Amino acid sequence: MKNNGPLPPSAMTVREDVRRAIQEDFGPGDCTAQLIDAEARLETRVICREDAVLAGRAWFDETYAQIDAGVSVEWFFDDGERLRPDDAVCRVDGPARAILSGERTALNFLQTLSGTATRTRRYVEAVADTGAIILDTRKTLPGLRLAQKYAVRCGGGSNHRIGLFDAILVKENHISAAGSIRAAVGRARGLYPDLLLGVEVETLDQLDQAFESGAQRVLLDNFSTDRLIEAVQRYKGRIGLEASGGITLKSVRDVALTGVDFISTGDLTKSLHAVDFSMRFM
Amino acid sequence: MKNNGPLPPSAMTVREDVRRAIQEDFGPGDCTAQLIDAEARLETRVICREDAVLAGRAWFDETYAQIDAGVSVEWFFDDGERLRPDDAVCRVDGPARAILSGERTALNFLQTLSGTATRTRRYVEAVADTGAIILDTRKTLPGLRLAQKYAVRCGGGSNHRIGLFDAILVKENHISAAGSIRAAVGRARGLYPDLLLGVEVETLDQLDQAFESGAQRVLLDNFSTDRLIEAVQRYKGRIGLEASGGITLKSVRDVALTGVDFISTGDLTKSLHAVDFSMRFM
Amino acid sequence: MKNNGPLPPSAMTVREDVRRAIQEDFGPGDCTAQLIDAEARLETRVICREDAVLAGRAWFDETYAQIDAGVSVEWFFDDGERLRPDDAVCRVDGPARAILSGERTALNFLQTLSGTATRTRRYVEAVADTGAIILDTRKTLPGLRLAQKYAVRCGGGSNHRIGLFDAILVKENHISAAGSIRAAVGRARGLYPDLLLGVEVETLDQLDQAFESGAQRVLLDNFSTDRLIEAVQRYKGRIGLEASGGITLKSVRDVALTGVDFISTGDLTKSLHAVDFSMRFM
Amino acid sequence: MKNNGPLPPSAMTVREDVRRAIQEDFGPGDCTAQLIDAEARLETRVICREDAVLAGRAWFDETYAQIDAGVSVEWFFDDGERLRPDDAVCRVDGPARAILSGERTALNFLQTLSGTATRTRRYVEAVADTGAIILDTRKTLPGLRLAQKYAVRCGGGSNHRIGLFDAILVKENHISAAGSIRAAVGRARGLYPDLLLGVEVETLDQLDQAFESGAQRVLLDNFSTDRLIEAVQRYKGRIGLEASGGITLKSVRDVALTGVDFISTGDLTKSLHAVDFSMRFM
Amino acid sequence: MKNNGPLPPSAMTVREDVRRAIQEDFGPGDCTAQLIDAEARLETRVICREDAVLAGRAWFDETYAQIDAGVSVEWFFDDGERLRPDDAVCRVDGPARAILSGERTALNFLQTLSGTATRTRRYVEAVADTGAIILDTRKTLPGLRLAQKYAVRCGGGSNHRIGLFDAILVKENHISAAGSIRAAVGRARGLYPDLLLGVEVETLDQLDQAFESGAQRVLLDNFSTDRLIEAVQRYKGRIGLEASGGITLKSVRDVALTGVDFISTGDLTKSLHAVDFSMRFM
Amino acid sequence: MKNNGPLPPSAMTVREDVRRAIQEDFGPGDCTAQLIDAEARLETRVICREDAVLAGRAWFDETYAQIDAGVSVEWFFDDGERLRPDDAVCRVDGPARAILSGERTALNFLQTLSGTATRTRRYVEAVADTGAIILDTRKTLPGLRLAQKYAVRCGGGSNHRIGLFDAILVKENHISAAGSIRAAVGRARGLYPDLLLGVEVETLDQLDQAFESGAQRVLLDNFSTDRLIEAVQRYKGRIGLEASGGITLKSVRDVALTGVDFISTGDLTKSLHAVDFSMRFM
Repeated sequence: MKNNGPLPPSAMTVREDVRRAIQEDFGPGDCTAQLIDAEARLETRVICREDAVLAGRAWFDETYAQIDAGVSVEWFFDDGERLRPDDAVCRVDGPARAILSGERTALNFLQTLSGTATRTRRYVEAVADTGAIILDTRKTLPGLRLAQKYAVRCGGGSNHRIGLFDAILVKENHISAAGSIRAAVGRARGLYPDLLLGVEVETLDQLDQAFESGAQRVLLDNFSTDRLIEAVQRYKGRIGLEASGGITLKSVRDVALTGVDFISTGDLTKSLHAVDFSMRFM
Repeated sequence: MKNNGPLPPSAMTVREDVRRAIQEDFGPGDCTAQLIDAEARLETRVICREDAVLAGRAWFDETYAQIDAGVSVEWFFDDGERLRPDDAVCRVDGPARAILSGERTALNFLQTLSGTATRTRRYVEAVADTGAIILDTRKTLPGLRLAQKYAVRCGGGSNHRIGLFDAILVKENHISAAGSIRAAVGRARGLYPDLLLGVEVETLDQLDQAFESGAQRVLLDNFSTDRLIEAVQRYKGRIGLEASGGITLKSVRDVALTGVDFISTGDLTKSLHAVDFSMRFM
Repeated sequence: MKNNGPLPPSAMTVREDVRRAIQEDFGPGDCTAQLIDAEARLETRVICREDAVLAGRAWFDETYAQIDAGVSVEWFFDDGERLRPDDAVCRVDGPARAILSGERTALNFLQTLSGTATRTRRYVEAVADTGAIILDTRKTLPGLRLAQKYAVRCGGGSNHRIGLFDAILVKENHISAAGSIRAAVGRARGLYPDLLLGVEVETLDQLDQAFESGAQRVLLDNFSTDRLIEAVQRYKGRIGLEASGGITLKSVRDVALTGVDFISTGDLTKSLHAVDFSMRFM
Repeated sequence: MKNNGPLPPSAMTVREDVRRAIQEDFGPGDCTAQLIDAEARLETRVICREDAVLAGRAWFDETYAQIDAGVSVEWFFDDGERLRPDDAVCRVDGPARAILSGERTALNFLQTLSGTATRTRRYVEAVADTGAIILDTRKTLPGLRLAQKYAVRCGGGSNHRIGLFDAILVKENHISAAGSIRAAVGRARGLYPDLLLGVEVETLDQLDQAFESGAQRVLLDNFSTDRLIEAVQRYKGRIGLEASGGITLKSVRDVALTGVDFISTGDLTKSLHAVDFSMRFM
Repeated sequence: MKNNGPLPPSAMTVREDVRRAIQEDFGPGDCTAQLIDAEARLETRVICREDAVLAGRAWFDETYAQIDAGVSVEWFFDDGERLRPDDAVCRVDGPARAILSGERTALNFLQTLSGTATRTRRYVEAVADTGAIILDTRKTLPGLRLAQKYAVRCGGGSNHRIGLFDAILVKENHISAAGSIRAAVGRARGLYPDLLLGVEVETLDQLDQAFESGAQRVLLDNFSTDRLIEAVQRYKGRIGLEASGGITLKSVRDVALTGVDFISTGDLTKSLHAVDFSMRFM
Repeated sequence: MKNNGPLPPSAMTVREDVRRAIQEDFGPGDCTAQLIDAEARLETRVICREDAVLAGRAWFDETYAQIDAGVSVEWFFDDGERLRPDDAVCRVDGPARAILSGERTALNFLQTLSGTATRTRRYVEAVADTGAIILDTRKTLPGLRLAQKYAVRCGGGSNHRIGLFDAILVKENHISAAGSIRAAVGRARGLYPDLLLGVEVETLDQLDQAFESGAQRVLLDNFSTDRLIEAVQRYKGRIGLEASGGITLKSVRDVALTGVDFISTGDLTKSLHAVDFSMRFM
């Protein structure tokens, strides 16, 4: 199969993300466009200024589609590909007014989403050959969750649940409400037989209970590597084992070497180093 | 005057920011709420885990207002105040289901906006006593511009133009379209007599032209400190002098000591170190 | 735990469903309200005219909340409870104009959603004591999917995936694109490790492949009861077995007696016998 | 005149109906599309599996227009035409991903709206040659009123008022508020001289009053056929006579034979037998 | 009956009108509110500076409801009542910031809608005692049609059709498409039996045809008063007679004295003399 | 530079203005379109019936773009150009149904916005050769502010602040809250260094204070021409001088001759004489 890289969220989501960003920037209207001749045309290239992983093409394209369908964008890299300093990422061609009006909005998407993809790629590379899968969390930039979840996939990570609706994670409050892990899991399974059912545990004893309750996944919260190794020895291959809690780029490889199946960290999406892109006018 | 700290954008903006973030997280509905007794109540405190500047109260409040008007939030700090590790920032009280359903969305706003406020405060403190004003830019997280611009004010910075509509910045493309700085400024002034009119210049010669054109502000792009000093000597007090371009926390004090009036940097808003907040259940 | 019946979709969804229905009915404005005295009040009861299962309280409440917050509604039954002919379901009390303006919209939700709940209950009762779980499908009334999925839960059924986003069902087109069931499942699992992964199969041979591929669920499409029994003998307890395709109220018990875990049918939601409710003015 | 069949509601309404349905099904994004080669194409036919009347082409077309403008749809039947089992209704041609992603949403509109058109056609045929006109009511599926009203026209019925805004129906509550039918009608006529003004009556005496009040239409609520005949004898040709209340496919012909002008029944739109359509991949 | 003056369009319409107007004025946020103490309160009165008819209370109230629920408004006049210079129309009381932020938006609604009501009242008074009813048209301020239609009712006029959906007006193009007035009217009546059916005629001959076609109303376009008298003599009481076309405040009484039933004029709503209101701070 | 007349607000704003206007007129659907053959085509010209200045082309175009992309519009005049009675303004060509359905909505924009442009042009011509710039205010038709602000530019006027967000006007309430003009201006400047800062003054003494406070603009409210002359003598060239308050077409030239820089008047936008346009079918 070809061209089968990660898929952006639906066209509707991208359209709405962009509509909102243009609205912020244009507000009642662009006051400088009129300084440019209405019939002038521009050709420009977007240049990446640092090592990065590209993400956000659909949002960049949509920005210009909404501003002026006469702008054409030709890409030299796919989302998910590695960029080097001074790489020309795409060529933008069309009416000068439209290109200048959309410049900031289009670049803001690219710098933000490539930032998330790049950070994810670092985690993915850190655990290379360990078999561990890097997962994101729900700690995301408000309003950009779907876009960031896509950027995580561009970086080589996988997505944990998108929100409160597509998987069930039984936590401490749910366990104490139900009386036991078994009761909480039983109730959740009865309500939503089709959703992934995970349990967040803080001790090996809770891990045993979670396994016995029939959960598909355990989230080992803030386990030391020793305790992770113990968990792996007991349950590897019998239940999905996910390490989580305060994992950073420094610690992630050690965690992965314990043999856990998944490592989830909010660091992929809650913080951000924007990638430096700019437009070079020809 | 009392309670006169920075004002969040209009209630409508906060409402829409929150609506969108809840939509992302709830999608077709929260599947775990049902594991909690419908009549159970919770009391919890939001704890800050690091040194930070608080920003985002209005978004946090609105999150719970939209989910369940029965949740009450009592704040112990104002936006713009400094937080220390382990400070309890607010008390959240009400139906357990609602508090747990809104936890992640509410905290995501707090961690993001306090992150921007905290980063801004570092810049503001770095230039303390120099008289320089720290300005943000339009390099923001898509969809969060107004929220971030508010966070910048909480951090002690000031806002540059919000978008393309509330000030005019004459750049290279506009100058070459009009034929000269004078022509571009004249045209812009004629079109929009009420908007701040700035010119981005790259040389001292262009600076002279910008001053003569009657612009109110010059944006000295990537000027060395020597050239900034020269610019200050020529024009201090006669036109607003703004340094910009690649300014970081390391270099900002040196730039400020040149005597420029304003320093603008995308670093305030395009990158982000999320502040670590969590809920402690009582 | 108390009051822990099925939960409606988020308040936001109910609000939007109702906003849209009111918009249809009010359009530019209610022309008859003015025939009623502005200060007149009414008390009325909603009466059910047939055997049914109640569903839709949140939409009924929201209709009046949007029209006039002064209308109060007191319910005598919970969603999911059985109604008999002439049961008074709730009391509606308040300004006469508002009650009359909202009557049709509020009842339309009740008659539609109770219709879906009632039909589901018939299926659930038909398979009582067989252990089979009744699932809905994506064959729903456009714009009412979340509401109908909730009504299915009120009727005692469970929800299959909500849409294309919260579970993966590998079908014939995907298999031929990937080359084999194993390849399609492997690719899907790699992309979305957290989602339920099912395979639609049409032969016992495909069932064997689906089991070996590591899928969690097989959808046995249009299997005869003999073949369903064979499937159960081979795989009961090792993979989720779901019968589907043309199942009706007549055939559902026979299907359930084969021992399958799940039975899914579009009949729950695509067709509808509206429950007869009316308002009796006191 | 050609191509002058019933017209769907405005493009805006169709667009919004479809946007909402796609949103339900896609939510944060289609997870299975990626299993199909990005460049693969499909050709498929929509097959009708039973006797039916077609309705919903505009919604089907719009579904694919919103998902991917590269999908083309060629229709072999017009809305309002009769379909036989195994008729190919249209050909759908284009990118495989888009066709599969939109399949369920597009078919859901077709099965729902054709269901309403088919039911309407049965009523219309039952009263053939009696001169009676079949009218719908405001008992519709929430959110689909305009679409269903269109389907009624496709089935050969006519539309009663769309909502509370485009005709006035004076009911019992209005009469008692105004003091008499004459007073209520007089007031309504004064307020809205341009709207159809009908009165719902329950006795022949009220019918006399309604006629004398100058109303244009009377709605004879739950009249026996004997009383309908009496009403026709008194007023045929002098005021519009509409029978209503509990009319079913069984009773409708007897009602029509009384000579009434209009017969309205909620059964057209509140209940639904979805028409069975499916896609056959070539 | 009490308080039974004209009813504003639905709460939803008023809410949306106001949301949009506030959005225009606030955009990214009110920059001057912060100059007022957060806890300061104001009491103010809205003063009318000229003879006028009041309209727009619901929009004024909603403006403050959206900005700050703590603002209270007490009205001294009803919509539809006559105002004299220096009349205090209402008292506005509450947080100073909110009152000042909403001042312009709230007054803009009042000045616009009262302008339309006042102009309408002049027409209504000009035809007093002639029995002619003053009707508006679809020539309205874009986005304000429902609000203006309401203002017309406040001024004592009646509403012609709201839009293309609630009455049918057969015009020249329709007649030539159908072949004759009779054919056009027959077709329209068959399609929409419940809508008012009018025909626009330009000659007495066309008037005869319109009457024979069974239309309910004729729109006598640009008829001289002599021809209007002729039309009245032929058809008064047998079909609704409406004069239209270039009617002004000067000519309207002469037109009314011909005996026509209705007079419609775009002048009520397409042009506007804003009524002068201002806030007097106490 | 060519084609560099005033720019309409962003495409998004025009789209939303038009969407709303079409919604008002179409509501649930155009009931007369079906009287026209589906395949008929029309050619028509928009004729101006009086002396006017054209404004609103983008809204006219967008109306037809939203209704049917097959309608083409060819303009014979630019926005801002002067029209004479009987000038053909544009040619509209395409499907007859679409042209007739959109006629009223498209013309309503043209008549309203050209009305504002024409009124503005009268003011601009009245002050010709005085150097005074005519400014609008925030007294606009609710929902049409951006469109009207554009029309003002078409008429040759300039825009004062769009709303509360793009300039600061210090008024009496702000001054008394801050204690003095100096304090209020100082605080405002500190909060928003980039926005135009004006002060509304009522006496020459306040004018002196405003000048000393560092404000960029003073709004001389209801000054007599004598006092305006005094203000000009004191401060011309040192601070922007704006006359405002009750200025009409009669008085504006006298005001301009005092030498003030700006004259602002609500009369441009709050009242309206709609320009008479109609479609002539060929």
